[in-house]
Amino acid sequence: MRVLYHLPLHPGCRKIRVLMREKKLDFELKAEQVWERREGFLRLNPAGEVPVLVEDGGAVIPDAGVIAEYLEETCPEPTLLGHDPMERAEVRRLALWFDAKFNREVTINLVDEKILKRFMKLGHPDSQAIRAGHANIHYHLDYIAWLCDRRTWLAGDDFSMADIAAAAQLSCVDYVGDVPWEQHQGAKDWYARVKSRPSFRGILADQVPGLPPPSHYADLDF
Amino acid sequence: MRVLYHLPLHPGCRKIRVLMREKKLDFELKAEQVWERREGFLRLNPAGEVPVLVEDGGAVIPDAGVIAEYLEETCPEPTLLGHDPMERAEVRRLALWFDAKFNREVTINLVDEKILKRFMKLGHPDSQAIRAGHANIHYHLDYIAWLCDRRTWLAGDDFSMADIAAAAQLSCVDYVGDVPWEQHQGAKDWYARVKSRPSFRGILADQVPGLPPPSHYADLDF
Repeated sequence: MRVLYHLPLHPGCRKIRVLMREKKLDFELKAEQVWERREGFLRLNPAGEVPVLVEDGGAVIPDAGVIAEYLEETCPEPTLLGHDPMERAEVRRLALWFDAKFNREVTINLVDEKILKRFMKLGHPDSQAIRAGHANIHYHLDYIAWLCDRRTWLAGDDFSMADIAAAAQLSCVDYVGDVPWEQHQGAKDWYARVKSRPSFRGILADQVPGLPPPSHYADLDF
Repeated sequence: MRVLYHLPLHPGCRKIRVLMREKKLDFELKAEQVWERREGFLRLNPAGEVPVLVEDGGAVIPDAGVIAEYLEETCPEPTLLGHDPMERAEVRRLALWFDAKFNREVTINLVDEKILKRFMKLGHPDSQAIRAGHANIHYHLDYIAWLCDRRTWLAGDDFSMADIAAAAQLSCVDYVGDVPWEQHQGAKDWYARVKSRPSFRGILADQVPGLPPPSHYADLDF
């Protein structure tokens, strides 16, 4: 069976998990503590990062962006990128917005500071980073609401990789209880629709040992 | 005519310039001082970043990664991604290696510190960043040589987006004179082959006012 090497609170890994569930692909999850720099794993991906997908035949595809394009090419139904080049450009633009910009401005400042640092024994969270993450998230939640005012889903009429990318990031920040949902009704309504998709169930069942999520995390009527 | 909003020493912009030349697409270059946050430009790309491609009909496609996929879909000949999903996964893996990892570990530490900070009036280069860039580049030049020992071009038999991505980064670092070519013959031989391609001529003609490149920069027999 396909194997996905992952970490539970890693947005790129969550993106691929949801993507594969949307495409109804079976796979086994294997947690990889990347900071241990295990030799067998570095042979799979010299960059030493998750996610890495290993196909039944042994083909190895590292990186969330690369895996997403590969799965779209090899398992095109249902498409999560769109039906023509301009639609796909808009989906990719927004997916990248969340994969890169949201990640850099919000997720790294909150999730990596609070969780990854603990596992990597890198000391206490940096309070300046935490403050930056809390300040920056409002702008992104406003952007989600602005898009949803004009479209059914973030990139257009259809649920797409843009929604998956945004929800993958937000779900990690939500796990540490740092999404101010009550101040952003538009984004909350969109996220409630994402949460109710069966593809999202695995994400909502995640439990990091010693660090339970807030009670609303897995609640579909949060 | 197609317009590409760009900055001369921006690796993502250089990647798209070379890509369009390889595909023999005509385009006009417009320099965009992104730090001025010009309103008309922010309407094209709310992320406020170059490159942005504007098509003849007015379609707007921002971000180097998104533009590259869009051009491959709309102008597929010659392909710069490869002919089957696994080939394309390897090209995308390596392109991302240079777009993200090399950029973060080398280019930002050297080019952004020395050039971008000056234009943005952010003060002097950070000597710790400069040292990190100088230390990290060896590992990447070794990786290029290792790949070229086993393959004609970085990702396989054909010149691809992987070569373009790597050369786009290295050419910026080379402009500030910080590539230790003499210690890395394998990478130098590969870069000499890239430099000799007609698609690369525009890059080698770049001149940043007040900051001329070293004499070997545009020399094909450097």
